[in-house]
Amino acid sequence: MKLVFLGTSAAQPTTRRGLSCTCLKVEGEILMFDAGEGMQVPYLRSKLGWNKKMRIFITHLHGDHCLGLLGLLQTMSMQRRTESVEIYGPPGTDEFVAANARMLGFSPSFPVIMETTEEGTVVDAPGYEVSACRAEHSVEAFSYRFSEKGGPGRFSTEKARGLGVPEGELWGTLQGGSAVSVGGRTVLPSDVLGEGKRGRTVGFSGDTRPTDKLAEFFQGCDYLVFDSTFADEMVKRARETGHSTAAEAAALAKNAGVKNLILTHFSARYSDTDDLLREAQKIHPSSYAASDLLEVEV
Amino acid sequence: MKLVFLGTSAAQPTTRRGLSCTCLKVEGEILMFDAGEGMQVPYLRSKLGWNKKMRIFITHLHGDHCLGLLGLLQTMSMQRRTESVEIYGPPGTDEFVAANARMLGFSPSFPVIMETTEEGTVVDAPGYEVSACRAEHSVEAFSYRFSEKGGPGRFSTEKARGLGVPEGELWGTLQGGSAVSVGGRTVLPSDVLGEGKRGRTVGFSGDTRPTDKLAEFFQGCDYLVFDSTFADEMVKRARETGHSTAAEAAALAKNAGVKNLILTHFSARYSDTDDLLREAQKIHPSSYAASDLLEVEV
Repeated sequence: MKLVFLGTSAAQPTTRRGLSCTCLKVEGEILMFDAGEGMQVPYLRSKLGWNKKMRIFITHLHGDHCLGLLGLLQTMSMQRRTESVEIYGPPGTDEFVAANARMLGFSPSFPVIMETTEEGTVVDAPGYEVSACRAEHSVEAFSYRFSEKGGPGRFSTEKARGLGVPEGELWGTLQGGSAVSVGGRTVLPSDVLGEGKRGRTVGFSGDTRPTDKLAEFFQGCDYLVFDSTFADEMVKRARETGHSTAAEAAALAKNAGVKNLILTHFSARYSDTDDLLREAQKIHPSSYAASDLLEVEV
Repeated sequence: MKLVFLGTSAAQPTTRRGLSCTCLKVEGEILMFDAGEGMQVPYLRSKLGWNKKMRIFITHLHGDHCLGLLGLLQTMSMQRRTESVEIYGPPGTDEFVAANARMLGFSPSFPVIMETTEEGTVVDAPGYEVSACRAEHSVEAFSYRFSEKGGPGRFSTEKARGLGVPEGELWGTLQGGSAVSVGGRTVLPSDVLGEGKRGRTVGFSGDTRPTDKLAEFFQGCDYLVFDSTFADEMVKRARETGHSTAAEAAALAKNAGVKNLILTHFSARYSDTDDLLREAQKIHPSSYAASDLLEVEV
């Protein structure tokens, strides 16, 4: 599983940073969080592929987070994509796509399934779940949390044989999590299965103030990608504009028991992010600054 | 006067070419022809400036020619632009901007003046004129022609003195193009003015088939920036999609007595444009291939 950062600038692009777009590459599938203008070029550079199974999650309807959707749908059509795309976003996302498709005269070559994001579970797929929580921004905005589903531990054929369970149907029953009876004795799944696999979790804040609600939502995330628009000295501006400082992101990550914090969405005024990273690391040492095309193994 | 190419790819961007946008830098003013998605980054790199007098001419409402408008207006607002922007485009351009401003919740910090393009003179400014002509594409599309206004020749103070015209009001009259009477003799402007300055002309085709009408419209242009989506072998596809091949662009330029042809809007299938350029140069030797960030002194 891999995080790929395609755009890490806030509001406007710089010559080094594009607009918001982060992909989570999961087993033959791409989960995209926001699609800012210009995300196609870094998408190409990252070789993520045009016909992969794809779900797109829009945090809010500001151009720097959703304008790239339109060109992306057109390019995927020109690439003769056949696989459907699911797009989740706040109310109005469907109108934004439909109105522009009409005004710009395009119709995708593949099914586009639009779903309005509400709080709670947004996607329940075989291998993972994505849930949403209301963020605090200048417009209606959502944060998302990806949770890989945990798996059972490894089945020990030696232990099963040792306990007299014959190979065949009964092994399947134990692997499925149910007890079996062998010669009058009960064998439990825990007798033959190793420790269960813990699912990995990744959070995406989108644009937001840090809130207690989000700290709870992101509780225990392995990775948290969080709004870090401003340095500490601009906390007033962060409050006014519905964003967070790097230090505020770090404080939330610490309170939420987040393992690794990845700062992103840097104001174009910062030519480098050293100060912001330093401010975050003072509070939460496991903090990193995203850059365009950065890839992180999760 | 300088042509600056910000995006030279057709329909979809590549890692080396962005979407359609060409600027003509004229005496403290920027005339932009199309504004494809992602044009802000090359605009930044070209250091064209956020608060210059600006007129934007949209050829047609396909996303690769107009989507960049939205982010551009937003960024110029964030840069606290005060100077107005005039936008000319086919019917629907105003709705495209207004609907997106509403859906994405932005309002420019400066006046945006929207004008619907019709054939004929579109702008008549003190130093130049821009006119439009219907192109032939899959949707309503316009080509534009920039014509610098010619100026009077240099005023020769020696000749004026030699003919006995005293310095002062009469010099102004001659410079303004009217004859004066000195000691019963008539002195004509042509007696004291050098050869008039011929205005420079630059044509922009946008997406189009080559047509006789356009050959006439672009008659005698110093520079012509023309749709060159395909190589010769794909002429059938060019016909089907309302585009031109490089050779067709060259034939039109030759018939129109165009001095310099600049090919642009290359299909993303071409990793280099050598073949297209060769095909064009066989017909019109003064042909060049545009690339992103290319600057041409006009």
